[in-house]
Amino acid sequence: MTHRPDRPSAPDGDIARRASTVSHATEVPLLSSAMEVAIVGGTGHEGFGLALRLAVAGHRVTIGSRDAAKATASVEEAKQLLGDDASIDGAENPAAVAGKPVVIVTVPFAGQVATYRTVTDRLEPGTVVVDATSPLQAAIGGKAWHVLRPWEGSAAELAASLVPDGVRMVGAFHTVAASALRALDRPIDEDVLVCGDDVEAKRLVGELVGEIPGMRWVDCGPLSTARITEQLTALLITINRRYKVKDAGFRISGREDWGSPG
Amino acid sequence: MTHRPDRPSAPDGDIARRASTVSHATEVPLLSSAMEVAIVGGTGHEGFGLALRLAVAGHRVTIGSRDAAKATASVEEAKQLLGDDASIDGAENPAAVAGKPVVIVTVPFAGQVATYRTVTDRLEPGTVVVDATSPLQAAIGGKAWHVLRPWEGSAAELAASLVPDGVRMVGAFHTVAASALRALDRPIDEDVLVCGDDVEAKRLVGELVGEIPGMRWVDCGPLSTARITEQLTALLITINRRYKVKDAGFRISGREDWGSPG
Repeated sequence: MTHRPDRPSAPDGDIARRASTVSHATEVPLLSSAMEVAIVGGTGHEGFGLALRLAVAGHRVTIGSRDAAKATASVEEAKQLLGDDASIDGAENPAAVAGKPVVIVTVPFAGQVATYRTVTDRLEPGTVVVDATSPLQAAIGGKAWHVLRPWEGSAAELAASLVPDGVRMVGAFHTVAASALRALDRPIDEDVLVCGDDVEAKRLVGELVGEIPGMRWVDCGPLSTARITEQLTALLITINRRYKVKDAGFRISGREDWGSPG
Repeated sequence: MTHRPDRPSAPDGDIARRASTVSHATEVPLLSSAMEVAIVGGTGHEGFGLALRLAVAGHRVTIGSRDAAKATASVEEAKQLLGDDASIDGAENPAAVAGKPVVIVTVPFAGQVATYRTVTDRLEPGTVVVDATSPLQAAIGGKAWHVLRPWEGSAAELAASLVPDGVRMVGAFHTVAASALRALDRPIDEDVLVCGDDVEAKRLVGELVGEIPGMRWVDCGPLSTARITEQLTALLITINRRYKVKDAGFRISGREDWGSPG
C-alpha cells in the first residue's frame, strides 16, 4: 500500500493561500490537492494511525514528537508500511506545525497544556487545529474509563484558550480506535464526531475524514459539544473492557450520509 | 399489527417469582413468557413508543400517568394502532407500578424526583427499574441540547438514591428516538446503551430490547456510566437540529452483536 499516486501536490504558496481563504470557500471542493497536515503526538497509537491513513489518502503528513529521534523512527516505520515514496516526514512538534494549514493534536490529557505551550507561537491565524484530547482520569493516575471536567468545559475548549486568536479549533477523532486506523487493509466502521465554532474548518476536517475508507463525519455543533463527545472515549473503553475487544466505535444512525449539514 | 400471538402468558405468581429469582438465572432464557412491564410517564412520546413496541413483542404493558384519564386515552390510542386484543392497559403511576417486575421511567428531568416520590412505596425489592431520564437544561428553562449535572452524578444515580434498597436500577433508552419507536412498520436502526450495577437486571432489559426489531443492546458498565450515556440525548438533539432530522441514533460498531458480555 502506498500513498495515492493521482493526488497532485499543490505548491506551498497555494496551500497557504487555501488555508487563509478556506472560510470563504463555497462549492469548490476543498481537497482537490494534497494537504499539508502536521500531527502533534504523531508517534502515539492514535496519531500514528491517523498519519498512515492521511498519507495513504495522498496528503503530505508530518509526524511531530517531543523527541526528533522518535519522530524519525515513526517515519521509518510508516515508510516500511506504505513504501518509500509515501509523503511523510517527521520533526519536533514546533517545527512540525510551522506553516501547516492543518494541525492535529493527539496527546494524552496529562501532556495537553505543556504540548500546546511548545507550539502555540508557530500557529498562524487561520490554522485549523484539530484537538483529539480526551480528558480521562488516567491523567492523574485514575482510571481511563473515568473522566475529568476541565475548567473550560472540555479539553477542546481548554486548547482553544491556549492558541492565538484566529486559530480555528475543531474537536474530533476522540472515538476513533487506534487499532482500526492501523488496520490499513480494512475500511473503518466508525463515524467521526466533529465539533467546532467554524463551519468551514469543520468541513475541511470532514473532507479529510471522508477520504479514509469507510469513515463518515458528523457535524456535532459548537466546540462546547466536545464536553460530550470527549467523554465518549471513556464509554468506549468501558465497552472494550467489558467485551474484550479493542475497536468499539460509534456510528450515527438515521441517515445514509451525514457530512456537511449544508 | 398486533401483539405477538405465540407468546404464552405466565400466571402472575410465576412472573413475581421470576422477578425475585432473576439474579440467579444462568443459561435459561429470561423472556420465555410474557413480561409485565409498567411504563411511568407512558403517555409521553418516548414512553408511548416503548409501550407500543413492547406490546407488539407480546408483553403485558401498563401505561402509567399522573392522570388516569390520560393513561386511558393512551391505551385507546394504542389499541387503535395494535388492535383490541393488544395486551395494554393504563393506570395512575403508583397503581401502574404495583407488583410489576419491570418498571420503565420515561419522564422529563423536571418531573423526575416528584414522579419517583409518588411510586417508590410501591416498588418491591428485586424490581428492575429502568430510568430513561436525560438531565437536559430544558428542565430549568434552558436548552434541551445543554445538560445539567445532578449532584449524584447522573439522573440514574439520582433515581437510585430515591428507591428502596433492593430495587435494581438500570439506565437505558436515553438515545432512542421516539419517532423511531413509533414507526411500527420499520425496524429500529439504533443500539440501546444499558448501564447498571446488577448484571442480570441489565440482561433482562437487554432481552426486552432484543425483541424490538433491529435493536441491539450494549452493556455499558456500571450505573455511574449513565453520567456519559444520559448526555448523549443532548448530542443527538444537536445533530437532529443541525441536519433537520428527527431520529439520529447510535450504533456501536466493532462487533456484529453485543448483548450480554458473558
